This record gives sequence, structure tokens and C-alpha cells, in this order.
Amino acid sequence: MGHSHYEKITIIGAGLIGSSLSLAIKAAALESFVTLSDSSKETLEQAEKLALADTYIADVTMAVADADLVILCVPVGAMSAVASEISACLKIGATISDVGSVKEVVLTGVGEKLPDTVHFIPGHPVAGTEKSGPEAGFATLFKDRWCILTPDEGCDQGALDKLVGFWQSLGSKTEVMDARHHDMVLAITSHVPHLIAYNIVGTASDLERVTRSEVIKYSAGGFRDFTRIAASDPTMWRDVFLSNKGAVLEMLSRFSEDLTALQRAIRWGDGDALYDLFSRTRDIRRSIIDAGQDDDIADFGRPHDGGDA
Amino acid sequence: MGHSHYEKITIIGAGLIGSSLSLAIKAAALESFVTLSDSSKETLEQAEKLALADTYIADVTMAVADADLVILCVPVGAMSAVASEISACLKIGATISDVGSVKEVVLTGVGEKLPDTVHFIPGHPVAGTEKSGPEAGFATLFKDRWCILTPDEGCDQGALDKLVGFWQSLGSKTEVMDARHHDMVLAITSHVPHLIAYNIVGTASDLERVTRSEVIKYSAGGFRDFTRIAASDPTMWRDVFLSNKGAVLEMLSRFSEDLTALQRAIRWGDGDALYDLFSRTRDIRRSIIDAGQDDDIADFGRPHDGGDA
Repeated sequence: MGHSHYEKITIIGAGLIGSSLSLAIKAAALESFVTLSDSSKETLEQAEKLALADTYIADVTMAVADADLVILCVPVGAMSAVASEISACLKIGATISDVGSVKEVVLTGVGEKLPDTVHFIPGHPVAGTEKSGPEAGFATLFKDRWCILTPDEGCDQGALDKLVGFWQSLGSKTEVMDARHHDMVLAITSHVPHLIAYNIVGTASDLERVTRSEVIKYSAGGFRDFTRIAASDPTMWRDVFLSNKGAVLEMLSRFSEDLTALQRAIRWGDGDALYDLFSRTRDIRRSIIDAGQDDDIADFGRPHDGGDA
Repeated sequence: MGHSHYEKITIIGAGLIGSSLSLAIKAAALESFVTLSDSSKETLEQAEKLALADTYIADVTMAVADADLVILCVPVGAMSAVASEISACLKIGATISDVGSVKEVVLTGVGEKLPDTVHFIPGHPVAGTEKSGPEAGFATLFKDRWCILTPDEGCDQGALDKLVGFWQSLGSKTEVMDARHHDMVLAITSHVPHLIAYNIVGTASDLERVTRSEVIKYSAGGFRDFTRIAASDPTMWRDVFLSNKGAVLEMLSRFSEDLTALQRAIRWGDGDALYDLFSRTRDIRRSIIDAGQDDDIADFGRPHDGGDA
């Protein structure tokens, strides 16, 4: 533990990820003193009521003053402004990281605001739920999930190793990757899936010949799965799409191209093309389960009154 | 119970729905004698090993001979052929129904094969999981889910009431609807969601710059939710798209139109448009939970080592 020990850790932003991080640090018994800060007075009070951290400091410059590790857990669009605010108050030799879902814009936008006297290592734990706010946090959110770190080329190896060790002590698997490549990978595994989930829910709620109450009643046919993702935090996701424009638009155009081909197969009654795709996609599901990234329980293990097979 | 009691029930097709139906009838203690039939010898043997029904008859004409209620639980594309086979062997006054996800093609395609001496009432329980086969069945699959019946105008009211009572005794809520309208409603709540899930999984597996192993590793960012739906039975879903072409193509073109607008908002950095949609979609999720069509548990209640909030 010594190697990955930060004596004082400051988490900025007490949302789902920030509060889970604080709880995870406590659960891992890292013996770090955890400070939580949040720009919303109400959120910070809620966090204190939930006893998420060791101390709660609204003033972000005071919150970071002594910290050996500062983790920005705010929406991607707010990162750079927070970095400007804290920049002059950071301890020499401290490590600054974040949990944003887009990395190139953070690497440059936050990086340019920070002094050379700190180690800046962007990060992204690929974990979450559709819930938001401090009461949504839980200690095991990062367990068995991947945390991707995207350091600059000039990054200090010791500082990087220490941050890797920190995430591993929370139960995460870690990977170091180029920020640009991260943004491409996440565009297809996270950003575009969210976009099409938001989109189908929007389309369904705008119909004239099918009422909204019918959409809701019969949502168990598949639609309800999409509504879970489409219930994710609007601010966070707006920022993701604005910050990862290039990769999202590229993946989206591939998606649309493939969808047009499927549409054509339906129109012309090409059952073989449909069957081929529908068989191929089963293998991917199997691989995800084998990799421990989802559970092989029917219907996500939704409760069926205990009668599930 | 008397009103909704069928003495002998024959279920044709021992897949997820057929086997769940048999188990549900037993669990509801309807005192009906249940016969299971399946064109696959192996599947029928499996069903027998699992003790799903009272008897197992491979020959479908013999299986239906005495039945008061026959329910076709085969893929939509196979319904009409099965109807032809059993047509001459049906008991006078029997009710024939089905569980297909598309109803207009069944109403006409199966209806024209059946004699006037039986009551034909197409049905669709809006329930299921991504699993297939007799071992995937469970007794509570239909509980609190909607079963939609789409009878012809000339349908006998007594026969309809009896079938409604039957589904209600299995725990389902029931609705009677025009077949054409059913197909429109299900196109948006089930068929198009499945299509885009299949499509995104296909797109993700065809990339060059992102490897398949990366797609799998980082799937917890949202992608894995889609792989569950995209693991559904390929034959069933091929038939659904080929049989509900008109409604699927209409809903799909609305989806694509909306997606193009979102794409444009991303390209031009219109954060307000994104935020508006992302906020609106949360309400739909809330309504689905309030209607009892999904549970308000974070991340579908996926196990997070018991630490879930």
C-alpha cells in the first residue's frame, strides 16, 4: 500500500463518481484523509450528511491546498475553469487527475492551466450508473471495471505508477493509453450508444399515432433498456458530445451507414443479411460475459418475483 | 377460474415463451392438461427432461387433436405453415392463439388457414429475455407484463373474454387492440430498439482502429446494455423485421431523421439542443418506473458485489 499511498486526497465534485470515489477510498482502508469540495452548497451539505469524506470545503482553492492527489470529478466542460481556479494553490509535487469521459480535450485544456510543479495525469474510470448526485455513490462502483489513464509523453513514471496503484487498490483494472485513442474507443463503446439511446427515447416521445402512454405500457419489449441509459446526467453528456466531436461524428456516420444497409435489407426482404448480423452479435455478448464485463443473467437479472431461471 | 378454464391446452414451440407459458399455467394451478409440441426432437426431449408440461407430442396434428386452446409459440415466419398442418385436426369450438411479436401478418396469414369452426385470436405477451430455448423458460415471465390481443372484428366475445381471463390468471395485464395499431406501437417500443442494438454491435465489431478486445474491455461504458438485446434469437428477429416491414421502416426513418438532427447539433456545437433532449428523456424513464414496467434500481440492479446503493 505504501507505494500507492497519498496522504491527502481532494475530490472536486460530489456527484455519482466523486462520491463513489470517496466511499471507495474509505472502503479500501487507504488511510488517506479525504476532502470533498463542490461548487453547490446544497450538494456539499448532502455529502456531509451522508458522511462521504473526512472533511467538506466549499472553497476549492482551500480544498486543494495541502492535497497530494487532486481528482476533478466535474463535467468535462467545467474542468478547465476549475483547473484555472486551483492552479496557483496546488502543492508542489502533487498529482492532479480527473475522471472525465473525454480525454484529449482534458489533456490539453486542463494541462495548459496547471503549473509545471505538479504531475497532471488524466484518467477515466469506465464505470457508472444512470443515477446522479452524492446519494447515488457506492463504494464498489469501480471494482473490476477498467480505469484508463492518458498521460502526456513527458509524464513522470513514478507519479504514473503511484496513480495506477491507487486505482488498483480500489479494485480497478488499469490501462495506459494515448488520449486520442481513448476518445476513439469510448466514442463507440459509450458515447454513440448513449446518443442513440437518447435519440430513440426522443423519437418515441414525439409520435402522433402512438401515444406516450402506449410507449410506456409496452416498454418491456426492449425500449425500457434504452430509457435507463437515456436517464443519465444531461450536463455531463452534453459536455461529452461537445468535447469529443470528431470521434463521435466518425463513429456515428459508420453507425448510420450500417443502419441504412439494414434498412435496405428489410425493405428488400433480405432475410439472410439480417440473420447473419443477428447471429454475429451474439458472439460479442458472449465475449463480454467471458471478460467479466457483464453478468450472464437473463434480462440483466431484473427481479421477476424470484422466479428467474 | 371456471370462466377462464381450458381443460386441455396445447403449446406448439418449446422455446423461451412456450416453455414459460407451460410453467406459468402450472404455477397458476389452472388444472389444465398441458401438451407441448416442437418440431425439433432434441428440444422436445429437453422440455420433457425439464418436466415443463404434462405430455410431449412431436406430431403436431396429434398434439392439437383434443385441445380447447392451442397457442402457437413459433417464430412469426413459421406460423402460417404450422396453421396449415393443424387446420384439419382442430377441435370444433377450440380457441387458437399465438405469441408472435407481429400481429397483422399473423391475423391474415394464419387466419386464412384455419377453419370457421374455431376461434382465432392472435396475441402477443410483451415479455421476454435475451435467452432462448426450453431451459430459458420461467413461470413468472408474464407477471405484470402486458398481453395484447388483436382479434378480428367478427371475433366471438365469449371466446375473447375467456382468453383474456386466461392471460390474467397468469398475472398478465391485458389489452385488446387493432392488429395494425399493435404493429405500429411495437415497431417503436420493441422492433426498432432491437434493430439499432443489433446495428451498433455490428458497427463496433467491424472497426479497424478500435480492436474488438477494446470494445469488450470498455463495454461497461454503455455498450454492454445493447449487447444483451443483440443476443436475442436471430430467427425470431429476422422474421419480425420481414413481417413488420412497413411500420419498422416508418419508425426507422423517424429515428434516422432525429439522429441526423442530433448529429448536426454536435457538429455545430449546439449544447442547448443536446441538453434539452437529454433532460426530456429522463421523464420517460420516470414514467416507465412509475407504471411498474421497470425497477428503479441503479444499473438495472446489476450485482456490484452487494455494495449497490
